[in-house]
Amino acid sequence: MATPAPSTVNKTAHPFEKPRLEALLNRRFFYAPAFEIYGGVAGLYDYGPPGSSLQSNIISEWRKHFIVSENMLELDTTIMTPAPVFETSGHVARFADWMVKDVVNGEVLRADHLVKGVLEGRLEGNREARGLEAKAKEEGEDAKKKKKSKVKVTAVKLTDEVVKEYESILAKLDNYSGPELGELCRTHHIKNPDTGNDVSEPQQFNLMFASSIGPTGQHPGYLRPETAQSHFLNFSRLLDFNNGRIPFASAQIGRSFRNEISPRAGLLRVREFTMAEIEHFVDPEDKRHERFHEVRDVVLVLLDRHVQAAGRTEVVNMSVGEAVDKGIIANETLGYFLARIYQFLLKIGIDPQRLRFRQHMANEMAHYATDCWDAEIENSTGWTECVGCADRAAYDLTVHSQKTGHPLVVRQALKEPIVSEKEVAEFDKKLLGKTFRGDAGVLSKLVESMDESALLKLKGELAQGPAVVSTPDGKEFTLAPELLTIERRTFKQSIREFTPNVIEPSFGLGRILYTLLEHSFWCREQDVERGVLSLPPLVAPTKVLIVPLSARQEFDPLVHEVSMKFRNAGIFSRVDDSNTSIGKRYARNDELGTPYGVTLDFASVQNRTMTLRERDTMDQRIGPIDEVIATVTELVQGTIDWDEACKRLPAYDGVQAVE
Amino acid sequence: MATPAPSTVNKTAHPFEKPRLEALLNRRFFYAPAFEIYGGVAGLYDYGPPGSSLQSNIISEWRKHFIVSENMLELDTTIMTPAPVFETSGHVARFADWMVKDVVNGEVLRADHLVKGVLEGRLEGNREARGLEAKAKEEGEDAKKKKKSKVKVTAVKLTDEVVKEYESILAKLDNYSGPELGELCRTHHIKNPDTGNDVSEPQQFNLMFASSIGPTGQHPGYLRPETAQSHFLNFSRLLDFNNGRIPFASAQIGRSFRNEISPRAGLLRVREFTMAEIEHFVDPEDKRHERFHEVRDVVLVLLDRHVQAAGRTEVVNMSVGEAVDKGIIANETLGYFLARIYQFLLKIGIDPQRLRFRQHMANEMAHYATDCWDAEIENSTGWTECVGCADRAAYDLTVHSQKTGHPLVVRQALKEPIVSEKEVAEFDKKLLGKTFRGDAGVLSKLVESMDESALLKLKGELAQGPAVVSTPDGKEFTLAPELLTIERRTFKQSIREFTPNVIEPSFGLGRILYTLLEHSFWCREQDVERGVLSLPPLVAPTKVLIVPLSARQEFDPLVHEVSMKFRNAGIFSRVDDSNTSIGKRYARNDELGTPYGVTLDFASVQNRTMTLRERDTMDQRIGPIDEVIATVTELVQGTIDWDEACKRLPAYDGVQAVE
Repeated sequence: MATPAPSTVNKTAHPFEKPRLEALLNRRFFYAPAFEIYGGVAGLYDYGPPGSSLQSNIISEWRKHFIVSENMLELDTTIMTPAPVFETSGHVARFADWMVKDVVNGEVLRADHLVKGVLEGRLEGNREARGLEAKAKEEGEDAKKKKKSKVKVTAVKLTDEVVKEYESILAKLDNYSGPELGELCRTHHIKNPDTGNDVSEPQQFNLMFASSIGPTGQHPGYLRPETAQSHFLNFSRLLDFNNGRIPFASAQIGRSFRNEISPRAGLLRVREFTMAEIEHFVDPEDKRHERFHEVRDVVLVLLDRHVQAAGRTEVVNMSVGEAVDKGIIANETLGYFLARIYQFLLKIGIDPQRLRFRQHMANEMAHYATDCWDAEIENSTGWTECVGCADRAAYDLTVHSQKTGHPLVVRQALKEPIVSEKEVAEFDKKLLGKTFRGDAGVLSKLVESMDESALLKLKGELAQGPAVVSTPDGKEFTLAPELLTIERRTFKQSIREFTPNVIEPSFGLGRILYTLLEHSFWCREQDVERGVLSLPPLVAPTKVLIVPLSARQEFDPLVHEVSMKFRNAGIFSRVDDSNTSIGKRYARNDELGTPYGVTLDFASVQNRTMTLRERDTMDQRIGPIDEVIATVTELVQGTIDWDEACKRLPAYDGVQAVE
Repeated sequence: MATPAPSTVNKTAHPFEKPRLEALLNRRFFYAPAFEIYGGVAGLYDYGPPGSSLQSNIISEWRKHFIVSENMLELDTTIMTPAPVFETSGHVARFADWMVKDVVNGEVLRADHLVKGVLEGRLEGNREARGLEAKAKEEGEDAKKKKKSKVKVTAVKLTDEVVKEYESILAKLDNYSGPELGELCRTHHIKNPDTGNDVSEPQQFNLMFASSIGPTGQHPGYLRPETAQSHFLNFSRLLDFNNGRIPFASAQIGRSFRNEISPRAGLLRVREFTMAEIEHFVDPEDKRHERFHEVRDVVLVLLDRHVQAAGRTEVVNMSVGEAVDKGIIANETLGYFLARIYQFLLKIGIDPQRLRFRQHMANEMAHYATDCWDAEIENSTGWTECVGCADRAAYDLTVHSQKTGHPLVVRQALKEPIVSEKEVAEFDKKLLGKTFRGDAGVLSKLVESMDESALLKLKGELAQGPAVVSTPDGKEFTLAPELLTIERRTFKQSIREFTPNVIEPSFGLGRILYTLLEHSFWCREQDVERGVLSLPPLVAPTKVLIVPLSARQEFDPLVHEVSMKFRNAGIFSRVDDSNTSIGKRYARNDELGTPYGVTLDFASVQNRTMTLRERDTMDQRIGPIDEVIATVTELVQGTIDWDEACKRLPAYDGVQAVE
């Protein structure tokens, strides 16, 4: 029997339809609105078995790619946080979004989302009015823009100037302050699209959930909106654990909370989410990275802040090395992490064609950041920030240290001590008190505050006899020479003390998970109802489905044997012996993203052979049970691909008709 | 060279001293008070690198032992929960502890803890007064009791009756209601031991943290105090995912919150904690378990509710099979999980001599439970509940279903349909309306509510002509025969619908982790300052320490090679090339619980040999690098023990003096 070449697959035969994907994810319980039987709560979702597995596989790969490979120090810290921490960090005052209220029905809307929705709707109406609808469909980009607008579209033609103005506003939307958003609403007559009513002036709404710790109600607390603060608070312990050496990174995977104003975007904007955060502590005077050479040639798609501030959106393809050399990316450490983020996202299955790195504009940046790049992933709603990579400088360590008096610094022995000389004034304390009594304190502070030249001048005067000094408010004191000695002394500094800077890659795992599902979804060419999730084996919830021909007892020993062999090989498998056709069982597992399936039938019992099916091509091969298991193990571990597997195992043409 | 036998180790040379362990855990950053530089918050802790690793290894083993081995459906659900969910579940009304206030300074104390502390203190004072101090020290049990009491002890002799009464109160302390605790405080003159002031009547304090969801403040929410509710709310989806089959279990590892009144017991009583919960859904009429035979002979230490209610604490050793047969454990499924919990705890290193299963007394049980056994682990504070295993019956599914109208039931096709006959009444609706108008509704309800015999009687009367029926409040109606037909009909029921019962094993991971650390801790016989954590390799944060003789470059290639080989073998290793003696580096890693260490020195460079050190015995062996790696791999995987390793690798006596 001739072995046919592996089948080719057309994954774009049907255009992407979000409702089909959503129906699949709901039906297969990847995730679902939390508290659904109570009517649900916007922005809260529960992950079912395949969603939990997918998430935990992504986390496991993240842990390997970042924590293990770079020896990061893992933390698991507290979510409930006393208010003073976030008062110091600036979150109580500034971690807020701008909201407007419908002046009639009181509905609350997020101001920037309102402006975006209305202007995008008008631009779309303009395109319709200009009869550009047909053309827009041809151009992928415009067609996508159309799908994004969430408001009713009325075909109204706009002047070229207005179109240009709207486009410019949208390109720099993240850069507007609250009052500017209010101004935009007034100037452009932006109203609540659901009711046509005016909206109020934008007001700040703090995004932290508030609570109270302990039985007395006297200790306000917040649920953390990021895990980062607890890394900073534990900095001294971490440094100590790392034997006082720097740079090092801490890492944490955990839940955070943001009380979003009106979340409506599925997993892309939620009120409770799992994030993975790295805080890389680095010498502010040396932000090189020892492994930078490994990523120097990685090419990224970059959208820098200057392009955006000019109201444009063109990207450039550039190697990380070149971008750092040109100062587009500020330093090696930031560049290193952007490249590592890129590699991680590709590894788990994100489409590199739909991934870009966008730099924050000045006003857009969080209050603690001095530079920030987002890994943005394109999906049906547009470009979504999925990973942020911020240079928080020394902001957090400095404010917490100032507030608590606990030094959050690195002390390094200098190879060569720095020797310096300076004038030092010393009072005869006893005489000082006796002479000036109540004023003694004022006087010593005055002398302490003198700079080198003032001290030298005073020293000269005292050499000649009593000298007069005066406070800034004009009070004068006459000092006798025996009261005060001023001497030149030598100082040797053998320790350098500094507050490290922090580079923070911060991953929103739910957003990554959702965009990955969009990138993985397609429908069979021959039947649009048959959805497939082409998840890479690395993250697929189940790696192999074991399908006995029926639930008849004679297959039990083989099912058990094959299960155990997969388990011993470290390959996660599931058995589906439900009472339905093999084709239906495979179709169900295409929806779950299971990359491989093996079938046990009467031939297996007689000849100890087993068929192997590949999810995307639906190709079936056959071979001895142990050989199939060995082949699947290599496929899942990524040491061979399907073409190679096809060379090892001949094609099987016995049951394809079943599907 | 003769190979000496492996050394023996005396782990009990020094008595356990809690402050030594606590200092070690703090110094090595297993965990620390959260927000420490802000003064900390009682009951909130952060896990540092070794604590995080230990926890994640325990979780990983838990996942294998329960989820993977039993094909449970994993969930990852929302912490922030809208109030109506916990109103329905009963938590808003009943998830509370009793607190009392110091009537002078307002300090808040947990009522049962107050009673316990004061009575234990008096019993201890009595022992002192009777001069039994010396004797108590000889008896292990009494000595431990002594250490537990937290209040100042005054030597006051008590009568035998009073001693007996106090002991009886303490044995059933968990069984008292709030008013009863208040009564105990009055009767026994229990005051705040810190101030000597009276305390108020006990009041309930709800242990859930409250917050508010969304920007309007109109949607109150609570942080979940257990993960369980979200399993119940998702029951229909889970059942569907399991192809409608029962029994099955869902499982979740996640954070929960309890706003404890005054937590003072380290990791044993915290306000935020990671728990692992299983909800096993089972047919209420068939609580057998298909794998019960695997655990039937597992012998547990049991303390049942009857013994405790009698004010006693004697335990029995009994196999799970016998306990189920005798009805001490209510059913197979509950027994199965108790045995599996036992096996899990032993696997991760809990001392079986300090583990017992205690049944809850009637008043002690949570409001939702019909039976409950706690796995209690003994530690320096006494016996601590670490795993609860409750039979929640159909409580939760029933209340949520009633509240929401969403059926949370199993529908099973019956093998043989149940056929039954009954009398059915049917009105001529048109005639009914015309005749009785406004009373038509009352009348049809009246007939609907009739039982079989009343219907038969009415049928007989109607056969003879008009019949009179009357409502409970005496209103009479005369029915014409043409108005109503009463017929005997046959019903065939082919579906059985029922609400499943839930068996819930619920693990407090922080408590398990802390008691494991106590059970693992000891000090070297020759030096009490040298602490060791004898964690099993399965859960130890690091499996192997790689120690180059110094940080000199010539060792780098070997360090890299050995690291990579361990990584490829799946063994987590760390390198310690810090600038201190090998002995000190090993001692530091004894404190971290690292079971094995390998040293790379000049002999390694020349001969490619490596020494291997075992943590507990400090034995050192030597062999070719690859052979040592293979041996360590087997040791960590548990396929060989240290005795076997000693047979493979000869003893090394070159550097032991360094320690």
